[in-house]
Amino acid sequence: MSNTEMKTPTDQELREFAGRIYDLDYKTYQTTGSALGRVYNDDRETCVKRIIKEMGSSETEHYLQTQVALIANMARTISDKNVRREIMQEYDIITQELMKYASIYQNTMSDANRDAFDRLTLQKRFTEKNHLIIAINRTYGSGGTQIGFALADALKLNYYNSEIFKTVLRRLEAEQDGVEDAHFNMPMDETDGKIIPGPPVSFENEKRSLWQRLKRAYRYHGLPIKDAVFFNQSELICDLAQKEDFVIMGRCADAVLQNNDIPHISIYITAPFEQRVERVMELDHLSRIEATKLLHKIDKKQSKYYTYFTGKKRNHASNYDLCLNSGTYGMDGTVEFIINTLLTSGIVTENRIVRHTEG
Amino acid sequence: MSNTEMKTPTDQELREFAGRIYDLDYKTYQTTGSALGRVYNDDRETCVKRIIKEMGSSETEHYLQTQVALIANMARTISDKNVRREIMQEYDIITQELMKYASIYQNTMSDANRDAFDRLTLQKRFTEKNHLIIAINRTYGSGGTQIGFALADALKLNYYNSEIFKTVLRRLEAEQDGVEDAHFNMPMDETDGKIIPGPPVSFENEKRSLWQRLKRAYRYHGLPIKDAVFFNQSELICDLAQKEDFVIMGRCADAVLQNNDIPHISIYITAPFEQRVERVMELDHLSRIEATKLLHKIDKKQSKYYTYFTGKKRNHASNYDLCLNSGTYGMDGTVEFIINTLLTSGIVTENRIVRHTEG
Repeated sequence: MSNTEMKTPTDQELREFAGRIYDLDYKTYQTTGSALGRVYNDDRETCVKRIIKEMGSSETEHYLQTQVALIANMARTISDKNVRREIMQEYDIITQELMKYASIYQNTMSDANRDAFDRLTLQKRFTEKNHLIIAINRTYGSGGTQIGFALADALKLNYYNSEIFKTVLRRLEAEQDGVEDAHFNMPMDETDGKIIPGPPVSFENEKRSLWQRLKRAYRYHGLPIKDAVFFNQSELICDLAQKEDFVIMGRCADAVLQNNDIPHISIYITAPFEQRVERVMELDHLSRIEATKLLHKIDKKQSKYYTYFTGKKRNHASNYDLCLNSGTYGMDGTVEFIINTLLTSGIVTENRIVRHTEG
Repeated sequence: MSNTEMKTPTDQELREFAGRIYDLDYKTYQTTGSALGRVYNDDRETCVKRIIKEMGSSETEHYLQTQVALIANMARTISDKNVRREIMQEYDIITQELMKYASIYQNTMSDANRDAFDRLTLQKRFTEKNHLIIAINRTYGSGGTQIGFALADALKLNYYNSEIFKTVLRRLEAEQDGVEDAHFNMPMDETDGKIIPGPPVSFENEKRSLWQRLKRAYRYHGLPIKDAVFFNQSELICDLAQKEDFVIMGRCADAVLQNNDIPHISIYITAPFEQRVERVMELDHLSRIEATKLLHKIDKKQSKYYTYFTGKKRNHASNYDLCLNSGTYGMDGTVEFIINTLLTSGIVTENRIVRHTEG
């Protein structure tokens, strides 16, 4: 784990170090009086040789590390405080040495590989030029929507979700065309299949001419409308990312931003299924069976939409920088958790954050 | 989001509040000069009525919240600093009011449901009597093993992984039986299919008598050996949890502990597949194709094992309190992240943590 440069140890140094591990085990065994704590049963010389051998190979070195951990587990049971402290101090030194040796041999990455890892770390991801963009996916009933909204509010970030996108895209269209299709069919993965009344659009009754229809077909490059909407959204996400900081809910924004090499933080908010059911029962006034059915339906729909456009599974942790269980932290707690993460990594400073006092 | 008690507002109060939302929109529209920023196009009275209506229903209230967010998004583009600040202040007040109204109507949970949510929060999970138990699952190549080990080291927690379990169980058996099966077949999901040399067991060549075989069959209740091993492990996990603090890697420990109502923190550590491939290539000296194949194989095996014993999907975020992407934070950074989480939630105090200075 350590980056510290270290010379390759001599045979003599290796031998001494292996001996210390053997002695630690022996002393622990003698003190505890239990064979359970004894890792090395053979004579000293045989064991020392074995330890040296284990240090030289990535397969066995990990094993050595866990054997040493096992010695420590046993040593911690020693009731005599002074003896315990002495053994644990020696254990600490040995563990640190072991990690250093590991880094010399093969257990850490080459500089090139480490650079690749580091390049992606949160701290280094954003430059002065980049906007702070937080892409949140959430499962229905996890409170993720409210969490995203409260986060945007606390950080004074713009907030985008499907409804806002719908409105913005509709108006951009209207500005460009002077015409508007009020029945424009947006994917509803974020509205969870509910019909949400749109704002009145004054020109929605205007008839669409052939010319307008052709123009629309041209803009969408003949794509199915679902795809066209997605690409329009994606374009808008990338445009916005050049201009402002924001929180964006869903829209596969995490994948869109990643594909366009736009620095962002991706977060997934969920909660255990049973808790989500309880919440949906309460919020949507449903029976347990209805809520369960609804959740299964929405989960499936969202997951299908995400996979269709990204080729990835929406609920896989490896897609995200951070996955939080809102059941674990509560809703306010989840917002705080994210803020703390941003503070700790130096992405935002304390004076950016607005905390509303209650009451 | 607020817990604050609040009286149900009168019609007059609602009307005034709705009017403020309309005015905020109007002012933003007038200042930006763009119809894009205009949420409410109708006359004041019509819009105020609509807003009041939207506040009264869980379906439309969320929509109202996002409309207000849209106004703020537009307002943030205002170049005149003073006007912008004035509008944003009004927005802040309106947002807070909106959240309070939401909590009166239906957008927050009943006390009972909130209690259920709170009971599980990290802060309240551990009592004086409970031990600190951290159950970690990790994907191969994510560095999760080293992260778990370093975490245990920093927190002075006992550390258990499959090899240690193997050794402990083997010795417990030996103590009970006076006999040992050196070829005892442990599931290898944590050793990733590699054959790791066990420590020499002095009595491994002793022949097993019929009586011993019967005794073994009795202990396992006639279960297939895979299941028997799992149940032995699970029993050991629960026993340990009564006695000590520890970090445990894999073993489905998260599910075992949950099923036994033993407080613990569950963490999943992973990284993007491509990064894991790079790491495995380096650590195991494999070609890209070999590393990819190995990862697919191990992922499948671990996932199968987990599902077989828990009925859940191993890589689903909702099983865990926290999922961390080690590619995002680096390995040291992931350890720090977990420690910070424990510190912030008051589960450990700063003086418990051992930070090794480098060099």
